[in-house]
Amino acid sequence: MSGFSNARIGVVGATGAVGREALLILAQRGHSRERIAAFASDRSGGIRLPYGDGWVEVEALAPVRLRDCDGAVFCASAEVSRRWARDAAEMGVVTIDNSAAFRLEEGVPLIVPEVNGESLGARAQLVASPNCSAILMTTALDPLRRGWGIERVIVSTYQAASGAGRAAVEELERETRAALEGRRPRPLVFPTTCAFNVFPHESPVDPDTGMNVEEAKIIAETRKIWGHPELEIHPTCVRVPVFRAHSQSIVVETGRPARAEDVRAALASAEGISLIDAPREGRFPTPVGASGQDHVHVGRVRVDRGGRRIGLWVCGDQLRKGAALNALQILSRLLGRAGDRVGEGASIGVGRAGAAG
Amino acid sequence: MSGFSNARIGVVGATGAVGREALLILAQRGHSRERIAAFASDRSGGIRLPYGDGWVEVEALAPVRLRDCDGAVFCASAEVSRRWARDAAEMGVVTIDNSAAFRLEEGVPLIVPEVNGESLGARAQLVASPNCSAILMTTALDPLRRGWGIERVIVSTYQAASGAGRAAVEELERETRAALEGRRPRPLVFPTTCAFNVFPHESPVDPDTGMNVEEAKIIAETRKIWGHPELEIHPTCVRVPVFRAHSQSIVVETGRPARAEDVRAALASAEGISLIDAPREGRFPTPVGASGQDHVHVGRVRVDRGGRRIGLWVCGDQLRKGAALNALQILSRLLGRAGDRVGEGASIGVGRAGAAG
Repeated sequence: MSGFSNARIGVVGATGAVGREALLILAQRGHSRERIAAFASDRSGGIRLPYGDGWVEVEALAPVRLRDCDGAVFCASAEVSRRWARDAAEMGVVTIDNSAAFRLEEGVPLIVPEVNGESLGARAQLVASPNCSAILMTTALDPLRRGWGIERVIVSTYQAASGAGRAAVEELERETRAALEGRRPRPLVFPTTCAFNVFPHESPVDPDTGMNVEEAKIIAETRKIWGHPELEIHPTCVRVPVFRAHSQSIVVETGRPARAEDVRAALASAEGISLIDAPREGRFPTPVGASGQDHVHVGRVRVDRGGRRIGLWVCGDQLRKGAALNALQILSRLLGRAGDRVGEGASIGVGRAGAAG
Repeated sequence: MSGFSNARIGVVGATGAVGREALLILAQRGHSRERIAAFASDRSGGIRLPYGDGWVEVEALAPVRLRDCDGAVFCASAEVSRRWARDAAEMGVVTIDNSAAFRLEEGVPLIVPEVNGESLGARAQLVASPNCSAILMTTALDPLRRGWGIERVIVSTYQAASGAGRAAVEELERETRAALEGRRPRPLVFPTTCAFNVFPHESPVDPDTGMNVEEAKIIAETRKIWGHPELEIHPTCVRVPVFRAHSQSIVVETGRPARAEDVRAALASAEGISLIDAPREGRFPTPVGASGQDHVHVGRVRVDRGGRRIGLWVCGDQLRKGAALNALQILSRLLGRAGDRVGEGASIGVGRAGAAG
């Protein structure tokens, strides 16, 4: 059920958290192991990564090997993308970049398929996949934007350690074990203790605005995705001691008044969203519940201020919909465009139940 | 350095988390052990609790013993307060109640000394101490209210497990150990797994508004503390896997435009606040850093929207300033009013450095 069953797909940065997730999704969708090329840095060449019942061998990235691919997802650093991604696109490889390298560049589409997939030109050759927080937020809010218009967004995040890479996950585990023994080791990845603690996102802070880079990305990328360059967005980005899946407390002010039941109905019927909103039955979004899931989980719908203010609680797997899955959905649309018959977003299976696999 | 050096102080609910904190603060301030009465339920009678270098013996609560006290802080359930607190006040005991029993009752002052201490009548006999989240938020925001006026507050909380009592702290520790061994035991205190997870506050949700009780408390109590019954407040309350100290991401819209440097100056000079806002040096508020501290820690000051919107990140020890310390500060003011000479809020030592003890 892949949108590119006959395509040869390259995964660049295959040994990282997002690259491994991309391989997992491709294997879960039944994409043939023979049609996967897993690239990483020279020093990772020869490493074997699990793929379905078998494995794929990691190759050092080289133009001659990349050229053989029909499509590629870049899951490495912005530096790697800057060096290779445009060349890949110019060689004819449909290239989806998960890094920040091209996201704000004019002429490079920045795509969340459920949100602005329709703006993806049929001949796009290099497409950027947004920052994880921007993907999850725009997916959750798009039904409100379409239904009532959005004038202002206030968002506070609860971001998992894995957003900072595999070393951060190890740091959380190591510090937690130490804390339970009464020790507090010096942090190596984060600027402060992450075990049993929360702290502002570790990205650099602009001394003029006080905003950190993660917050600036959410603002700039959301404005580009929605084509609304003046939209008021006030984000506060925070790390929490969670291994996987980001959460967001969001308040939006709408252009037209909404009723709670209509908001729920719009969310419940939206592509890529699972509405989970029965707190008295103990059912609400959590990062543990959203981990490994394709859908963005939305709940705690509250409407006040005469229908003009809507509160939501959102959880989503930032490695999956927030990165690898979103990129593969875009790739699937583009490779499917030539008549593959499954190039309509649903191709890289985001099922209504939201279950992975 | 106590505001009530000669007073006999009763701590009701002495075996709970807030009661123990009240005893700790009194001992740290050098209040004589001979002038403490520690009350709890019948079944706790005879238990010894640490007090300074020694201990105090817990007594079953009885009117005849309560009557001997000059002042009492109630740190037990709302049920215990409803049964005993008004009687204590009528017997002439200056009574400060930490529970929700009387907070919204007309005629009962609801006090955060740094915020509305001036509204505390000299003859108040029964005074309520607010919900922990409301105390921390109003303390952090009061300099902005005084300086620029507040028209709207949007707050998302990151609340510690200890806010749900000692059993919740044990649950977090037990679940975390299990998670590190790959197990996920059934939660007993919280509605879902708390280890490496975040989830909406566990208090009941009003089906009409979608708000939970913690959020409703923040709204109603903040409006009463500030004497602003129409103030727009939109809270979202969330638990995080932190043992102690609550955090809040707050956005306020002000009545008059503010400049960031003036906001910082107002916060830096405010009573009960430590401004910690140097992220590039790794200095910002965290719950680990705020644990055991008297002050509310405020940082990540951001001013945008032409000076009319201010973002803050706030951490405070909810057992200390959010409960026991706030109640003892109120008690100190009232017992000091008869000429004790230290009845000016600073009496129960909230030092500028914010260090406990």
